Amino acid sequence: MLETAEQGLKVSKDEYAAAEPQLRVDLINAQYDLMNSDFSVVLVITGDDRIGLNETIQCMHAWMDARYLETHIFQLPSREEQERPRFWRYWRALPPKGKIGVYVGAWPLNAVVDRVRGRIDGDEFAHRLAHIRQLEQDLANDGTLVLKFWMHIPKKDLKKRLKRAEKNKDDAWQVEDTDWEVYDIYDAAMPYVETLLEATHTKSCPWQVVESCNDRFRDLTFGKALLEALQQRFAASPAPAPVPPEVGDFPDALGEVDLSRKLDRDEYKSALRKHQARLAKFTRQARRQGLTSVLVFEGWDAAGKGGVIRRITQAVAVRDYQLVPVAAPTDEERARHYLWRFWRQLPQAGRMVIFDRSWYGRVLVERVEGFASEEAWRRAYEEINDFESQLAEHGMVVQKFWLHVDRDEQLRRFKAREQTPYKKYKITEEDYRNREKWDAYTAAVNEMVARTSTASAPWHLIAANDKPSARVQVLKTVADAFKQALKA
Amino acid sequence: MLETAEQGLKVSKDEYAAAEPQLRVDLINAQYDLMNSDFSVVLVITGDDRIGLNETIQCMHAWMDARYLETHIFQLPSREEQERPRFWRYWRALPPKGKIGVYVGAWPLNAVVDRVRGRIDGDEFAHRLAHIRQLEQDLANDGTLVLKFWMHIPKKDLKKRLKRAEKNKDDAWQVEDTDWEVYDIYDAAMPYVETLLEATHTKSCPWQVVESCNDRFRDLTFGKALLEALQQRFAASPAPAPVPPEVGDFPDALGEVDLSRKLDRDEYKSALRKHQARLAKFTRQARRQGLTSVLVFEGWDAAGKGGVIRRITQAVAVRDYQLVPVAAPTDEERARHYLWRFWRQLPQAGRMVIFDRSWYGRVLVERVEGFASEEAWRRAYEEINDFESQLAEHGMVVQKFWLHVDRDEQLRRFKAREQTPYKKYKITEEDYRNREKWDAYTAAVNEMVARTSTASAPWHLIAANDKPSARVQVLKTVADAFKQALKA
Repeated sequence: MLETAEQGLKVSKDEYAAAEPQLRVDLINAQYDLMNSDFSVVLVITGDDRIGLNETIQCMHAWMDARYLETHIFQLPSREEQERPRFWRYWRALPPKGKIGVYVGAWPLNAVVDRVRGRIDGDEFAHRLAHIRQLEQDLANDGTLVLKFWMHIPKKDLKKRLKRAEKNKDDAWQVEDTDWEVYDIYDAAMPYVETLLEATHTKSCPWQVVESCNDRFRDLTFGKALLEALQQRFAASPAPAPVPPEVGDFPDALGEVDLSRKLDRDEYKSALRKHQARLAKFTRQARRQGLTSVLVFEGWDAAGKGGVIRRITQAVAVRDYQLVPVAAPTDEERARHYLWRFWRQLPQAGRMVIFDRSWYGRVLVERVEGFASEEAWRRAYEEINDFESQLAEHGMVVQKFWLHVDRDEQLRRFKAREQTPYKKYKITEEDYRNREKWDAYTAAVNEMVARTSTASAPWHLIAANDKPSARVQVLKTVADAFKQALKA
Repeated sequence: MLETAEQGLKVSKDEYAAAEPQLRVDLINAQYDLMNSDFSVVLVITGDDRIGLNETIQCMHAWMDARYLETHIFQLPSREEQERPRFWRYWRALPPKGKIGVYVGAWPLNAVVDRVRGRIDGDEFAHRLAHIRQLEQDLANDGTLVLKFWMHIPKKDLKKRLKRAEKNKDDAWQVEDTDWEVYDIYDAAMPYVETLLEATHTKSCPWQVVESCNDRFRDLTFGKALLEALQQRFAASPAPAPVPPEVGDFPDALGEVDLSRKLDRDEYKSALRKHQARLAKFTRQARRQGLTSVLVFEGWDAAGKGGVIRRITQAVAVRDYQLVPVAAPTDEERARHYLWRFWRQLPQAGRMVIFDRSWYGRVLVERVEGFASEEAWRRAYEEINDFESQLAEHGMVVQKFWLHVDRDEQLRRFKAREQTPYKKYKITEEDYRNREKWDAYTAAVNEMVARTSTASAPWHLIAANDKPSARVQVLKTVADAFKQALKA
């Protein structure tokens, strides 16, 4: 795609002076229309011409209202960033609806640099590109306008630009050591750039390659393309993402759970003590090794999630875990992709995060209650798999638990809870209403398990009619997962 | 105060077993009442008995619903934390209304450790204690229930505890190298602890010193005190903070501004070029030196804030500044102290943050429009001074600008704006309504300047009837401030 941007195109001073004032007015006004709209813009500006793209960014900030641009220059990851999966910093920076997030460098450049420096091999590069495609698609499906610009300068022009900048006293600060390094690896990098551009040039998130040699041409081309994209989006809502085809029936995973499992008091006490001791030891080792873990708990109302989680936290030092109850999102969360609120909770290295309910709400309660459109919950399976695979690839332990009871047992527990002195266990009308949808939830759970149980982030269906047995099953599973992941 | 906690108090197993079940029920229920109330709890747990206090924290997490405890163990500050003022991490961790933030170690222990290690001298220690008092008072005034527990163990008992823990295989992991260091400096530290406890034991944020030798006594005493504090607070709203006495008239600082200042076109162009070049150079040096700057812009509607800010950002690389427009707070912000949203915007080292409107809204629009109570905006002066002094003490450049025009000039600009093609400059009814309150705003500005202009965070009243002159005044002031702060 790069050769399209090696034509020596120029804009004269007069042409520029004629076009710029109206473009500025239009861009500012588009920005103000955006503020009243229901989508955000992620504007990726990157390329092989760092100085040129910096000038374009500077220019855009002069043209537009900088108060509503959130600009992020992605350089070497900080310590906090290194402790999370690669894309954490991109998720963390997501703009809310109505704003433009300007992502400078970002994931495309990062992938090319890692490849050309030999930090990843060809297979890993291909894998990274797949994650990139998924990330961009996730954002686009959520309604975000994803715009991507690659500023391209031919090698001989890059050399000229660097020499000229170095000579000119006022511009000399613009040239950094790395710019000459980029020049040195230019030929080696270009094939990877081509691969990147082709592999991530999609219908909903296309690349725009901009010829970068002539400043006026570059800035004007960029500005017009940005304006056009915004105006097009205002004119027409995006086509809804296609709904993945419904695949027939899913195995009745819940039906396979042996709910007769039971532990007597002595077995329970000794197994509890044993696995809590293992977990205490393993989580302390995990802290020292920087091994992070993510535990997800879902299950029927009154299946005993709270009690299971408590048996885990009893064994873990308070400094080593955080417990995230998932309730209604805040307005900062509602203004972004639904996974944002979970990305922002990822802990520093060496800690355990326990989600009491989770991103699976999308394909459980939101599906069954109709809070999410069918299109939204259907694509969530893929989004979730990609999210979890990034956690696992970063080296995290990811384990997911569904606590299963039957309807009779649930009713017994509701009745018992109505007698307890703890306010939090009071049963409400809603709890009884949810019971009515048992079959719909069962179908949702079976599909969820079929679609999202993976080797690196498996689902465990826990027989929970007997609480002691459920607690021990979970503790043992978690402890075993740590044992496998910890370095000896 | 420590001698009160050296009495060898104990709770027997039977007493504990009799008291604990009801205490747990009451604590859980209090926690659920808190969720429906309009205040948050900051629970500081610290002391000279690290192992003991960790046990109490573990115990509290077992007793209460850990999902609604946000626990923060404040150890050595991270790189991100080091780049901000000392209390940034405490502000950043503030719980929203309805939740309990558990602060382990935190500012009291940090102050004592810095003093005993000789990182600060006696004067700096006294100064730190004043900041602590102010922080706690700010939170309490805002309605936060601030609870502080110091877990105290006499030296001989500390020795016993450490030896016992080391011998016991199951507990050995509890002892860290630093625990024996604490033992070694115990005698040296205690006088500072006494000073800390006395200096920060206030009516609204009192210390509770808990004798820590006997685990059952410690945990039960802590749990009961926590419950009592919560129940007292539910029973009675806190007494409103006293309103600082009104001090007569303030100098008419705005009246002193010479609005006839004017620059002709040539003077403007050359001065603009000169000071933008200085700023370009200085901000790049600032990046390298890690010098952070905070610029605050306030002023009459249509006084030209936007144009001034644009002349600054033109000269600064996009990566070196962030522009924060202050609009309506999000619900995460509304659930916390009003300064929280500004603390969270403090940039990493070496960057400039520009606030387009700011925390001064509290004593300007919120005062004049009655959005804040008189008690709230009156105490804001002191809160703001303390906040800014922390920025300055951290080495930041803090400069504040009020752009001043007269009423006639404002009206002329309103009329002119009604003709512009930029939507953002459209004048609304509200702009005209605000004009009616000119005198009330003038009084508010004069009081604000008198109370909050300090040597390290000065106000600059900028004559802005002539836009070019205003821009050059600001640019020169900012550049001069950088020049003074930069290392040669």
